[in-house]
Amino acid sequence: MAFVQIRAAKEGDCGDILRLIRLLAGHTPRSSLCVFIPPISVALRADGFGENPFYHCLVAEILPAPGERQGPSIVGYGLYYFIYSTWKGRNVYLEDVYVMPEYRGQGIGSKIIKKVAEVALDQGCSQFRLAVLEWNKRAIDLYKALGAQDLTQVEGWHAFCFEGEAMRKLGGK
Amino acid sequence: MAFVQIRAAKEGDCGDILRLIRLLAGHTPRSSLCVFIPPISVALRADGFGENPFYHCLVAEILPAPGERQGPSIVGYGLYYFIYSTWKGRNVYLEDVYVMPEYRGQGIGSKIIKKVAEVALDQGCSQFRLAVLEWNKRAIDLYKALGAQDLTQVEGWHAFCFEGEAMRKLGGK
Repeated sequence: MAFVQIRAAKEGDCGDILRLIRLLAGHTPRSSLCVFIPPISVALRADGFGENPFYHCLVAEILPAPGERQGPSIVGYGLYYFIYSTWKGRNVYLEDVYVMPEYRGQGIGSKIIKKVAEVALDQGCSQFRLAVLEWNKRAIDLYKALGAQDLTQVEGWHAFCFEGEAMRKLGGK
Repeated sequence: MAFVQIRAAKEGDCGDILRLIRLLAGHTPRSSLCVFIPPISVALRADGFGENPFYHCLVAEILPAPGERQGPSIVGYGLYYFIYSTWKGRNVYLEDVYVMPEYRGQGIGSKIIKKVAEVALDQGCSQFRLAVLEWNKRAIDLYKALGAQDLTQVEGWHAFCFEGEAMRKLGGK
């Protein structure tokens, strides 16, 4: 039986990660923004695998049993980075977590999330944040089952964003 | 007349920044967590002013006119760090923005936010995110007036968080 390994991404995995980023983008309300992905493909390698990487990434890799047919070997990813709280110090933020639809229901998403928590604890973080769209009931149920709190619901946090023309105007550019 | 300067924090400003962090903590629903602040005071210096700082900080400093009485010179701060989007690349996140109540209404908060946007644009960021509590109408009105979108309202983003025992259990520690 095939075995799923969750491991730190290597530079050579960028092509696979980009394939999964494109699949994830196709499932979000902002999918029209896929036009922004090509420049990211260039940056992804430099930004994640230089001396001071801007992000870290885990991949879920299928290791087939001897004699088993090999499909795509990288079927999921979790992209995270370190953030900072003036109450808690260094924490971790999971920006993306994605598993290809045909590999869901096997606990691969949970394994990625658990590995991020393990890395975060090893780095002395006491908080692990992420964001989810309210229609994504499957993800919300999973995060809650794993012990997460919905801070928007419980404490009333709203996410705000400046971008594009509004951001240029704000920064006087 | 006194002049307000927004400038990058120096290591010697940590005492003042900590004083403001304590004031901000006193105004939030999690104020019982102030107990966590003492260890942060030790970390704040190391985390922000080492070779690879975990955060960046701006301070609002009052420069009194000649002959004017000098009150506290640092009356506000904005603490930010760089985050990463698989659609947009490197972006900026404003974790805290705070102005002492007696110095509000003079546009100091807006000046801090504009300076963060300027720094972000100079670093090639196209997005500037922050979070706000839904009861903080004054802050929400300001962010909207400056051009921010409420992504929780518009797109349905909810902030989730693992911490404490839930996080330790998740990471198997």
